Amino acid sequence: MDGQNKLDWAYAHMDVIQKIRERFLKEKPFEGLKIGMALHVEAKTGILALTLRDGGAKVRLASCNPLSTDDSVVEALRERGLEVYAKKGETREEYYENLYKVLEMEPDIIIDDGGDLTTLLHTSYSHIPILGGNEETTTGVLRLKVMERKGVLRFPMFDVNDAKMKHLFDNRYGTGQSTLDGIMSATNLSIAGKIVVVAGYGWCGRGIAMRLRGMGANVIVTEIDPVKAIEARMDGFRVMPMIDAIKEADMVITATGMKDIVRKEHIVEAKNECIFANAGHFDNEISKNALEELAKGKREIRKFVEEYDLGNKKLYLLGDGRLINLVAGQGHPVEIMDMSFAIQALTAEYIAKNHEKLESKVYAVPEKIDNEVAWLKLQAMGVKIDKLTEEQKRYLEEWKEGT
Amino acid sequence: MDGQNKLDWAYAHMDVIQKIRERFLKEKPFEGLKIGMALHVEAKTGILALTLRDGGAKVRLASCNPLSTDDSVVEALRERGLEVYAKKGETREEYYENLYKVLEMEPDIIIDDGGDLTTLLHTSYSHIPILGGNEETTTGVLRLKVMERKGVLRFPMFDVNDAKMKHLFDNRYGTGQSTLDGIMSATNLSIAGKIVVVAGYGWCGRGIAMRLRGMGANVIVTEIDPVKAIEARMDGFRVMPMIDAIKEADMVITATGMKDIVRKEHIVEAKNECIFANAGHFDNEISKNALEELAKGKREIRKFVEEYDLGNKKLYLLGDGRLINLVAGQGHPVEIMDMSFAIQALTAEYIAKNHEKLESKVYAVPEKIDNEVAWLKLQAMGVKIDKLTEEQKRYLEEWKEGT
Amino acid sequence: MDGQNKLDWAYAHMDVIQKIRERFLKEKPFEGLKIGMALHVEAKTGILALTLRDGGAKVRLASCNPLSTDDSVVEALRERGLEVYAKKGETREEYYENLYKVLEMEPDIIIDDGGDLTTLLHTSYSHIPILGGNEETTTGVLRLKVMERKGVLRFPMFDVNDAKMKHLFDNRYGTGQSTLDGIMSATNLSIAGKIVVVAGYGWCGRGIAMRLRGMGANVIVTEIDPVKAIEARMDGFRVMPMIDAIKEADMVITATGMKDIVRKEHIVEAKNECIFANAGHFDNEISKNALEELAKGKREIRKFVEEYDLGNKKLYLLGDGRLINLVAGQGHPVEIMDMSFAIQALTAEYIAKNHEKLESKVYAVPEKIDNEVAWLKLQAMGVKIDKLTEEQKRYLEEWKEGT
Amino acid sequence: MDGQNKLDWAYAHMDVIQKIRERFLKEKPFEGLKIGMALHVEAKTGILALTLRDGGAKVRLASCNPLSTDDSVVEALRERGLEVYAKKGETREEYYENLYKVLEMEPDIIIDDGGDLTTLLHTSYSHIPILGGNEETTTGVLRLKVMERKGVLRFPMFDVNDAKMKHLFDNRYGTGQSTLDGIMSATNLSIAGKIVVVAGYGWCGRGIAMRLRGMGANVIVTEIDPVKAIEARMDGFRVMPMIDAIKEADMVITATGMKDIVRKEHIVEAKNECIFANAGHFDNEISKNALEELAKGKREIRKFVEEYDLGNKKLYLLGDGRLINLVAGQGHPVEIMDMSFAIQALTAEYIAKNHEKLESKVYAVPEKIDNEVAWLKLQAMGVKIDKLTEEQKRYLEEWKEGT
Repeated sequence: MDGQNKLDWAYAHMDVIQKIRERFLKEKPFEGLKIGMALHVEAKTGILALTLRDGGAKVRLASCNPLSTDDSVVEALRERGLEVYAKKGETREEYYENLYKVLEMEPDIIIDDGGDLTTLLHTSYSHIPILGGNEETTTGVLRLKVMERKGVLRFPMFDVNDAKMKHLFDNRYGTGQSTLDGIMSATNLSIAGKIVVVAGYGWCGRGIAMRLRGMGANVIVTEIDPVKAIEARMDGFRVMPMIDAIKEADMVITATGMKDIVRKEHIVEAKNECIFANAGHFDNEISKNALEELAKGKREIRKFVEEYDLGNKKLYLLGDGRLINLVAGQGHPVEIMDMSFAIQALTAEYIAKNHEKLESKVYAVPEKIDNEVAWLKLQAMGVKIDKLTEEQKRYLEEWKEGT
Repeated sequence: MDGQNKLDWAYAHMDVIQKIRERFLKEKPFEGLKIGMALHVEAKTGILALTLRDGGAKVRLASCNPLSTDDSVVEALRERGLEVYAKKGETREEYYENLYKVLEMEPDIIIDDGGDLTTLLHTSYSHIPILGGNEETTTGVLRLKVMERKGVLRFPMFDVNDAKMKHLFDNRYGTGQSTLDGIMSATNLSIAGKIVVVAGYGWCGRGIAMRLRGMGANVIVTEIDPVKAIEARMDGFRVMPMIDAIKEADMVITATGMKDIVRKEHIVEAKNECIFANAGHFDNEISKNALEELAKGKREIRKFVEEYDLGNKKLYLLGDGRLINLVAGQGHPVEIMDMSFAIQALTAEYIAKNHEKLESKVYAVPEKIDNEVAWLKLQAMGVKIDKLTEEQKRYLEEWKEGT
Repeated sequence: MDGQNKLDWAYAHMDVIQKIRERFLKEKPFEGLKIGMALHVEAKTGILALTLRDGGAKVRLASCNPLSTDDSVVEALRERGLEVYAKKGETREEYYENLYKVLEMEPDIIIDDGGDLTTLLHTSYSHIPILGGNEETTTGVLRLKVMERKGVLRFPMFDVNDAKMKHLFDNRYGTGQSTLDGIMSATNLSIAGKIVVVAGYGWCGRGIAMRLRGMGANVIVTEIDPVKAIEARMDGFRVMPMIDAIKEADMVITATGMKDIVRKEHIVEAKNECIFANAGHFDNEISKNALEELAKGKREIRKFVEEYDLGNKKLYLLGDGRLINLVAGQGHPVEIMDMSFAIQALTAEYIAKNHEKLESKVYAVPEKIDNEVAWLKLQAMGVKIDKLTEEQKRYLEEWKEGT
Repeated sequence: MDGQNKLDWAYAHMDVIQKIRERFLKEKPFEGLKIGMALHVEAKTGILALTLRDGGAKVRLASCNPLSTDDSVVEALRERGLEVYAKKGETREEYYENLYKVLEMEPDIIIDDGGDLTTLLHTSYSHIPILGGNEETTTGVLRLKVMERKGVLRFPMFDVNDAKMKHLFDNRYGTGQSTLDGIMSATNLSIAGKIVVVAGYGWCGRGIAMRLRGMGANVIVTEIDPVKAIEARMDGFRVMPMIDAIKEADMVITATGMKDIVRKEHIVEAKNECIFANAGHFDNEISKNALEELAKGKREIRKFVEEYDLGNKKLYLLGDGRLINLVAGQGHPVEIMDMSFAIQALTAEYIAKNHEKLESKVYAVPEKIDNEVAWLKLQAMGVKIDKLTEEQKRYLEEWKEGT
């Protein structure tokens, strides 16, 4: 019941997906195809899976993260006839078992988040033929590009993350809001007045930094890219290496896609009661090994808050260092996932229709899809915009008109 | 266990109260006195009650709002020996029963939030002698001032809300953050891109408006005060009457202390899927009667989200129109309540020591208390500030020095 | 011509004053009275002086600051028949000569800014009887209150600065914008990316800090008041003593009303190329003596930019340490002065009508005047606001309605 | 003298160019080459021209805009031995005469802004051989791309605008600040409380919108691109077609690179006293023809403010519809042009060294140059950032590491 309502609520606020689903129901673009999915299993991904199913596909859905599953949604999706293999808090073994279940269906198309499904398809399941797939995250795409460069990628993959309607919104506004939401829920602490270090000034990091400032925090950014570092500084944030930043931090949030951002050398410099949270895909941005090693004891002082007692100080790790917006929050806001999943749905349709022309490469999402989603979203928001006049179009083609 | 951890977590982040409690434990300012409290019963108020108890008082605590009680904290407080009369979701009858329990102890000092305890002491319990008390909210203080003006107030009451260390922080940063937190948790919807109407540009309203903007909303303010209206406009918000604002609203948040802010004439003009939430003390700012009257049906579509079906559109009411930050959130951030409750504790101490000099009036919190709390808080944050030099002090007393 | 256009432009954007002037022209409230004024002489103050003149007063106007006079406006005002005694860059002697001219008229009412006129009326001109006057600035009011406390104040003075329609707007939005405008014009340097220290978090300081952040600076606040210090911190700024802040500063802006905010001990710690500007009334907030003493040489490297060469570093002082928004900018935006001067005009009228009831005290501006100005301004902006319903008015008077 | 000081002040704050110039003085990369430049002639461009000259080039400099020249800088540059052909307020004929002077030198490399030099090299001066050149603006690059597409481009041109260290900073923070500065100087009006329409949400438009909000305006964005429209909305701005926006506008600022953004149909709908300003390269974004046609009269009411009297209302056009930040302001802040001109200098050096490998195409600035400028800038600001550890570099190359 609870899960059904969650699906209803999500669907009611996924206006773009609603329109795509209505078309899919008529056109059945996936007739005869099997789609294997590994995503955070909650209401919004549920709606995506149902939408692909309603487009004619046979669908299997597993989780891409052991802690982010919403069991009530799993149940509701099963009631609606979907094959779901996920459970909140599943063990590492169960996690992989569930991915295997998805692959054993021998999918034609995959929808991956973080790249674990793709990796399996290049190791234990390298025998399964795949028409193509989508990858959702920066982390997964980084992996794909390494594979492409090394010449081992064996089917076409679309970098969904690179679509404008995805990363401009999902990574920035989605991660920004949901990370804050997760941290506030987990801690009930004030953001205002805190000195917060944000590691990484990519789209996620700048979304988080922007929202932290919007809630009254004083933000320090750490970066390895000089251009992004200057941008952060020009945006009014302080920029410094982590080893300096950590000494001032009331809170540290990682959003880099890289491991060991907070490691032993940093932890020893942290202030008493410093809070650590991660907004990157994997739980290796904050070194749990280092925390364990340095701590004399630990306890769960609050749901999703682990207290590490280092003797001279106490440190708090939120959500076991996993994606805090999914572990302690509810993931991205519905309307934002609506856009990202519209990209996913239309890109999957593109693969279904064009796989014969595709090579084993990492592809950008066609611009046409980006624009289609944007127009549908504008329509859903009731926002009208300007159009070029004929004279303006002519001017655009003209290069001799002068000062 | 859960409740005990919540108390531990709260206490760990209430640095000012920690220092006051340490002194109270030694000085026992409330020895021989009984303190009756009616507050939102959760971890932070629990710490206040324990602090007063540790200062020598006999304490009874009831809830000031039927929906905001945290049962695990009630249990934990009882385990720590406190007399608590509160239960989440208690009926109106139970609510008043619990207030009666507090009054039957015949308290010397009261700590009230919203004024129900005070009202009872002027109606059914008008026989109990009271040394003095504190009132926490704008709503309660408005009532007290009417009583004072009408000559019916029968004991001294301190307008705790008016203390700078209370309303500047609690009402603005506290309500700002926790209201957003409550709404995001209840809905999982994006704040960014929404047009949100904030009714009231007092300290609460401006806190909410500021945080909404910080999260990417486009805010419209409604007001009845011309000065505040101009301030809102100069702060970059649009200002208009509710009847116009409602037509654009994706969400309406009330924070006025006045009833019927959203009434029938507004509801009929609302857009489909408009969301209503209240951040004021009482649940009468958004007219539930009007919603009921206009609706053809309603259902709880999500926890804390009531869907009203008006036939031509659906409207959502969050948390039954009660304080959304307490119903769907966790109340104000800990560090902010730390300041407010430090004011409460020191003002209660002031009553204990000075009640003989006090009359049946509404008093401001002594400036000395405000400053003491401020200095303790600065110390807790590790922030140092400047001091006037001797020469500067002299200059301050000088009026002949010219251009 | 230029001055006349400046007056036209100002008047066109002073909607509130327009309405007041129309009434004054008919009612002539100052018939038979003389008004002596000492204000920054530029277009907007010119319009105020003309408005009082059109209300029937005989008016004399001098400058309250030797550097802030706009000579083209002086000329234009004279062409319009006003007696003006001011010249840009007048010497200290000329400055006082001009004030004497105003006093030699033996004014009935004075309008002062900074308190020099008032001081003269208590020293060399203590023989002139005065019905009452207005003081515009925090600095002047501080002086008045000392005089009141010491029992030497010899006529009623209104603290115009305390009117809500003055300090909430003029000090905050006016000083905020015009200070930034002055600094940007004087330096052509980027605000974004700079670390800027704002001394003082009163209404002026917070206006400056807010706008600096809005332009991309990273702001550090210095304060002596613990409550304001915490507010600044909760607003997301860093707070520290000047001696620490100066070490990080790319720029320092003082807005305190106190002298020697930046003194020798700070200057020696400043970074190379640090820029100093003042937004407070007097030019003593940044110690020019200390700069002179430490410098091996100085030159005007750019209009309004003095370069002090300290040997090991160069420091820049803007506008000779005088009010930078008036020296290098054009003073407060017109619409904001419109509100402040409306308060001035109506308060002067109040003195004219009520002087017999007034004592030799510092008075607050009557709330009625504040509200009148607010309503006129709302009307001018075309903004409508809500009104209490009858039921709501009744509720406001009710204290028994409960939870 | 004044011009020399302006050059000194600019050079003192162009830390990146300082370092490049020091190297150029030693290496003389332009030995034997002639560089023809058409840029806004003021202090910062002057420093660029001198830097290229110090790198061994023979340089001629003309203006790319008749109104933006600073005559005192022209004089100072001539005193420093540079050949400059520009005068503030030059006629259209003089403007072109000056461009001809630059081309008559038969330059090897050109540095263009807006594309007029390039256009002449494809029409009247199509006989001059060119090794390559840089184009600074979006407007100019749009032209170049049309030329490339049509196959008429006859030498390699670098899209300097596309360099990250250019458009991320110059267009966003530079245009943002300087446009506001220009408008505030020209009008002395309050930004706070105004409803301002920004046409275009490219890098310039979003810089302007961001700064307007930072100064307290309520911003409406107009766009033709659906993705940018949604971004603007998610950033908290209202988005609508110009025909609707104009009805609410207190001010309209164009930043599109397209002509006729404000045309007759819009002007007739504008409110009384609406202010129009342009931040795009050409003065055709706001239709002066339409204004002239609709107006019954016009006068210069204030420097850089033209009042058009339409009978039923008055409208104000700032700076004759030309780039307001250059006409009424001082152009971009020095530190920002420092980065843009560092890109220019290094790209010119790249052309000098690599022209033999280049084709007649529009080239992106090599990433290496972007990064070099970024590192130099970080160094100049004294900002340190993190570096990848060896382990992290290894991880970046690894695709098998999982959840």
